[in-house]
Amino acid sequence: MSDEGIRSGEIAVALPEEFDAGVFFIGRIRTPWTERDQCPKNARGSDAACTVELDPRYAAALDGVAACTHLVLLYFMDRARRDLLVQSPRHGERRGTFALRSPVRPNPIAMSVVRLLRVDGTRLTVVGLDCLDGTPLIDIKPYFPSVDSVPDAVVADSKKTSS
Amino acid sequence: MSDEGIRSGEIAVALPEEFDAGVFFIGRIRTPWTERDQCPKNARGSDAACTVELDPRYAAALDGVAACTHLVLLYFMDRARRDLLVQSPRHGERRGTFALRSPVRPNPIAMSVVRLLRVDGTRLTVVGLDCLDGTPLIDIKPYFPSVDSVPDAVVADSKKTSS
Repeated sequence: MSDEGIRSGEIAVALPEEFDAGVFFIGRIRTPWTERDQCPKNARGSDAACTVELDPRYAAALDGVAACTHLVLLYFMDRARRDLLVQSPRHGERRGTFALRSPVRPNPIAMSVVRLLRVDGTRLTVVGLDCLDGTPLIDIKPYFPSVDSVPDAVVADSKKTSS
Repeated sequence: MSDEGIRSGEIAVALPEEFDAGVFFIGRIRTPWTERDQCPKNARGSDAACTVELDPRYAAALDGVAACTHLVLLYFMDRARRDLLVQSPRHGERRGTFALRSPVRPNPIAMSVVRLLRVDGTRLTVVGLDCLDGTPLIDIKPYFPSVDSVPDAVVADSKKTSS
């Protein structure tokens, strides 16, 4: 495993030689951001309307989606390395990958909760994304506050070890 | 594509012949449920404590996770068919797959928000899962209410078409 591009304190792992399962890219996400430095720091960092372009093959699966005010999108951060277990974000503490929302992770699948503005055929207009233009989409789910919303959840500021 | 096991009104699609990307199974989820009929209808349907057994290869990535009260888990519903675009759930209206949280979807990746009770080495004890025992884990993320919690999100009861 190459240690190229690792910052001080970061830890890489040798990943398995084979994948265990496969995913289909079911569409593309269109955003105003073509370089990583342009992306908002998180999904609430921009009110930009972005477009989800679903592959027309899956059009029928959108039936009923317009009844949702919010959706969960899963997308594949295909430019991210996958082998870092501990990361030192430029703006933040050194932490384990599973305590970060960084795209760098063994399975670089990002999850964002977005507000749905409009459905036009296989194009969804949404607010709440932070990814690069052209990012592959892998899933669309309805957001149910009864199971997905935990307003009083906490991520403690000071780093604690997972003892 | 076989139409075997399709209910009236359901629509299947011919999936692409090749996957676009691969995922690693990074652990297993241990739950009390070994048959689909035993699983709670949704993730708030049970207070059962479940166990996430992370592959020790990724142990270092848990650093800081204990500071989270809630986590987002992504897991792979590897027993689900992937080709249904419209589904008629046993208890519910006929809807497009992307308006449902059914495991049946082109990429059968489930997302659950869980409450973290305890971290013991590479074992996490959590509440809020509804999946079968042995389900492969693919990601652990910290839950941030600032971006993940939308208490007033709505999924309208009456089915609307995605015009």
